[in-house]
Amino acid sequence: MGYSHGIVLVLDGIIQCTERDEFAYQEMISFLPLCCHPNPKKVLIVGGGDGGVAREVVKHPLVEEVHQVEIDDRVVELSKKYLPFMACGFDSPKLKLTIGDGFEYMKQREGEFDVIITDSSDPIGPAESLFQESYFALAKKALRPNGIICSQGGTFWIDMDHIKSTLDHCRKHFPVVGYGVASVPSYPTGQIGFFIASSNENTKLNEPAKTFTDEEIDEMKLRYYTTDIHKAAFTLPRYAAKKLY
Amino acid sequence: MGYSHGIVLVLDGIIQCTERDEFAYQEMISFLPLCCHPNPKKVLIVGGGDGGVAREVVKHPLVEEVHQVEIDDRVVELSKKYLPFMACGFDSPKLKLTIGDGFEYMKQREGEFDVIITDSSDPIGPAESLFQESYFALAKKALRPNGIICSQGGTFWIDMDHIKSTLDHCRKHFPVVGYGVASVPSYPTGQIGFFIASSNENTKLNEPAKTFTDEEIDEMKLRYYTTDIHKAAFTLPRYAAKKLY
Repeated sequence: MGYSHGIVLVLDGIIQCTERDEFAYQEMISFLPLCCHPNPKKVLIVGGGDGGVAREVVKHPLVEEVHQVEIDDRVVELSKKYLPFMACGFDSPKLKLTIGDGFEYMKQREGEFDVIITDSSDPIGPAESLFQESYFALAKKALRPNGIICSQGGTFWIDMDHIKSTLDHCRKHFPVVGYGVASVPSYPTGQIGFFIASSNENTKLNEPAKTFTDEEIDEMKLRYYTTDIHKAAFTLPRYAAKKLY
Repeated sequence: MGYSHGIVLVLDGIIQCTERDEFAYQEMISFLPLCCHPNPKKVLIVGGGDGGVAREVVKHPLVEEVHQVEIDDRVVELSKKYLPFMACGFDSPKLKLTIGDGFEYMKQREGEFDVIITDSSDPIGPAESLFQESYFALAKKALRPNGIICSQGGTFWIDMDHIKSTLDHCRKHFPVVGYGVASVPSYPTGQIGFFIASSNENTKLNEPAKTFTDEEIDEMKLRYYTTDIHKAAFTLPRYAAKKLY
């Protein structure tokens, strides 16, 4: 039962994604927040230098403009060279890529985006500030009314304290906050989660505002995400649900 | 983000279970089939020599009698010595343990059980025959009318061909057949699935016949399984659903 991961991107010694299963992560971090929003016209991606999130976000038929700010131009270059199946996300005419600091970028924007997706490395290390309260405050200001944010979120098997504190940071700025999960074998424990928060108090995270038929899913070449997967993603094991909600 | 698995049971060089996450597996392989049945009075466990499945099955309030047949008495002895948190399953007055071959045991029983749970090692190796068509034919005969079976079932990340052929074997004998999943970090890819089949054509696998409130779940000391987790377990990523259904 051995298997190969295919091409692997490693940053600071930590696996960021593998060719075999990256689609699960990219589809879920993109379509969970996009489909919680009834009309996600203008999207910001913070990080995501490999291009995988951009590749998925531009597939959504209601998305018109995608702005991306990535701090490390070498990640973009390496991805174009070695991970063309992800870097293809940069080719879309919907996308505008800026090399720079996500914090500084957002400080200069107010009420601009329907959805902000933060595709960063782990919360311990260079990306630490992207999980702190000041970041969620900034993201809230950069959103249009009823906007939605989504960030990479560790796993309930080993990161429970981090998940709980991040959700608490989010709750100070957003009325609706949740944690959805996906199966991604190449991450520790084989599972990863996503923080999602809406500034619209009527958002129901597990009832997508935009649904897709299986035919539409296949046309967009989605291999993991479906409307049913979206609904199921927010159901947590009892011990995790008890601690987080 | 390192973490410890606690005590680990290894058979023929393959991790069978670890103290940290075994509850996810044992609860799901037990409560998925039990809760698909409206009244699972009499249950057979084939394998499960560590006692973990017995520990969970006897918790179900409608279960009156549990018969277990395990081929290897050394697994039972080692579990009693080193895995007391699982071997405690053998202490229940509801349980009758037989050391012997599951195939031979079932050949002598007809129309006896409401639920049969097969908790075996992997399909490649000594347990291979437990995933073949003749096994499902035998299990079908050992069931009472409207009975339900459940077996360990690999993961959709690497075992797709095996899953598909096993489901096809099941379909020859059962009108309702499905594949549910759970997150278990210590297994390859961090995920495992379960084959479930019902001889009642009206069974809806993702709508449990018996539901539990969160309070009841907590009273039974379940840490993974809930009625919502049950409903979500049968939702598969698009690529897996396309191949299997």
